[in-house]
Amino acid sequence: MNIVVFGLGAVGTVFATFLKKSGHKVYGITKDKYLNDLKSSELRVKGIWKDHKVKLDGIFSSVSPLKEEKIDLIILSVKSYDTQSAVKSLKDIVSEKTKVIVAQNGYGNYEVVSEEIGKEHTLLARVIFGSKIIKPGFAEVTVNADDVRIGDPSKTIPEEEIIKIACIIKNAGIPASYDPDVYKTLWDKILYNCALNPLGALLGCSYGNLAENENTRNIMNRIIDEIFEVAKARNIELNYKSSKEYIHHFYENLIPPTKDHYPSMYYDIKSGKKTEIDSLNGAIVKLAEEIGIYVPVNRTITEMVRFKERGLKR
Amino acid sequence: MNIVVFGLGAVGTVFATFLKKSGHKVYGITKDKYLNDLKSSELRVKGIWKDHKVKLDGIFSSVSPLKEEKIDLIILSVKSYDTQSAVKSLKDIVSEKTKVIVAQNGYGNYEVVSEEIGKEHTLLARVIFGSKIIKPGFAEVTVNADDVRIGDPSKTIPEEEIIKIACIIKNAGIPASYDPDVYKTLWDKILYNCALNPLGALLGCSYGNLAENENTRNIMNRIIDEIFEVAKARNIELNYKSSKEYIHHFYENLIPPTKDHYPSMYYDIKSGKKTEIDSLNGAIVKLAEEIGIYVPVNRTITEMVRFKERGLKR
Repeated sequence: MNIVVFGLGAVGTVFATFLKKSGHKVYGITKDKYLNDLKSSELRVKGIWKDHKVKLDGIFSSVSPLKEEKIDLIILSVKSYDTQSAVKSLKDIVSEKTKVIVAQNGYGNYEVVSEEIGKEHTLLARVIFGSKIIKPGFAEVTVNADDVRIGDPSKTIPEEEIIKIACIIKNAGIPASYDPDVYKTLWDKILYNCALNPLGALLGCSYGNLAENENTRNIMNRIIDEIFEVAKARNIELNYKSSKEYIHHFYENLIPPTKDHYPSMYYDIKSGKKTEIDSLNGAIVKLAEEIGIYVPVNRTITEMVRFKERGLKR
Repeated sequence: MNIVVFGLGAVGTVFATFLKKSGHKVYGITKDKYLNDLKSSELRVKGIWKDHKVKLDGIFSSVSPLKEEKIDLIILSVKSYDTQSAVKSLKDIVSEKTKVIVAQNGYGNYEVVSEEIGKEHTLLARVIFGSKIIKPGFAEVTVNADDVRIGDPSKTIPEEEIIKIACIIKNAGIPASYDPDVYKTLWDKILYNCALNPLGALLGCSYGNLAENENTRNIMNRIIDEIFEVAKARNIELNYKSSKEYIHHFYENLIPPTKDHYPSMYYDIKSGKKTEIDSLNGAIVKLAEEIGIYVPVNRTITEMVRFKERGLKR
């Protein structure tokens, strides 16, 4: 297959390395500032899935060199705040049979991509292995919570095509499976990230610290309540009947194995980087306010993170 | 006059020093842990009201040695979280003519004191000079925003008695005046502190930083809106017809002269100390929830500060 991995952060580096290793033709798209470091060197992955080094078939900072290629699969792995700009150039390499897998965090990426290039080209993946960048082109896989789940929220793409793509990824060495309810599965992760990430980032503490303290539990519970209210009003189906049911699962099953984890948003803020708040709690606020619902806790938390992002560089 | 200053933090040290200097008999009550440092040494004040050193007529860690004295005036200047315990021992030194001036921050102190020792003994002061402790017994006055305003919210104590007490303080060198609307005046300061203190403490920034940024302005505006809602529902009269009117005054007149100021709550949290959140936003939450009003922004902010207080010591 001819594959493009668009965005070579931790997740993109892992996909590109494993897919190349298993014999596909793989191109990478990265930002200008990383291009010199990456274009002539090998990609490397270490961690729980062993050590691997590969040389891609080309790394570029735009899709222009690929316009004449017939691309079968594109994995979109840019940060959510870069989706808008990425999707415009995607159009130039999407042809009749191309599929794009949106493999990003938070709400809104699938919506933007499928709107721009068409539902018949767009798949959604929920990626939940833990990975981090050691340096550009070198990623570590630290933990795997579940398969990469791949599906088509719009039910436009035939199941067998999706299963074939999931198998290609699985055969490359990344646990993956077809998920007919991928949209609900993604929302599970959105709930989890909205409750924990910004609060951990603002208070500078681990998931476990947030769950042990009565005050932060109260805040997280209200964040989750608000999201359930918005989902209901917008006819977004979730995997849980009520916020109470989710909250129980959250403290009982989800937090314990990740209790020592600090959110990536904490490191983003610490190093003066942009965060993905706009596709997490910020997206909830937008979904709510578009239909006149007030979500004060999500809004306050979102605005505090935005202040930290845009406010002081110290 | 025989005067007791209960609580020798920055504000208490200033009151005790000036009142003693002007010829009154002045006793101080301090915590056990400061007693050894303070009981044998002079109190000292420096800053915008010049340099002064005095020796009080006695410094104790309880009121027991004063039970036989006839006390005319008590200035209550403990931190709000110590009001409950202070007020119990106050009873032992309040006799028929004793007046107690509640000279503390936030909501709830006057209510607790007047309930316990009687409205006919209790005056309220709004203290708005800036002072800080250099070390125990040594305070600096950094800025004076307005007179110490003294009054009786219950209108039980004759005006001429209050005016006399205001004059005693003024003659001692601390700008002070009688305020028939002292309760409203105190609420002005509560509004100001609720909007700025916890947010500045959580985000680690000055009042000016909070006012310049659109996101933190939104949060502060909602904090103020919620307080106006609660005040209205509880028949608490404020000096402003609407939150909109107050918000205008807040950004136009109140913030600019104090824009470089960091809230004391910021330093409290930084040094692992208790804060006065329970008499500021925490008091608003209590006033609201007692009558079934939901104040999500004040509540979220309060709970974040409580987490910081009780949560991590780093």
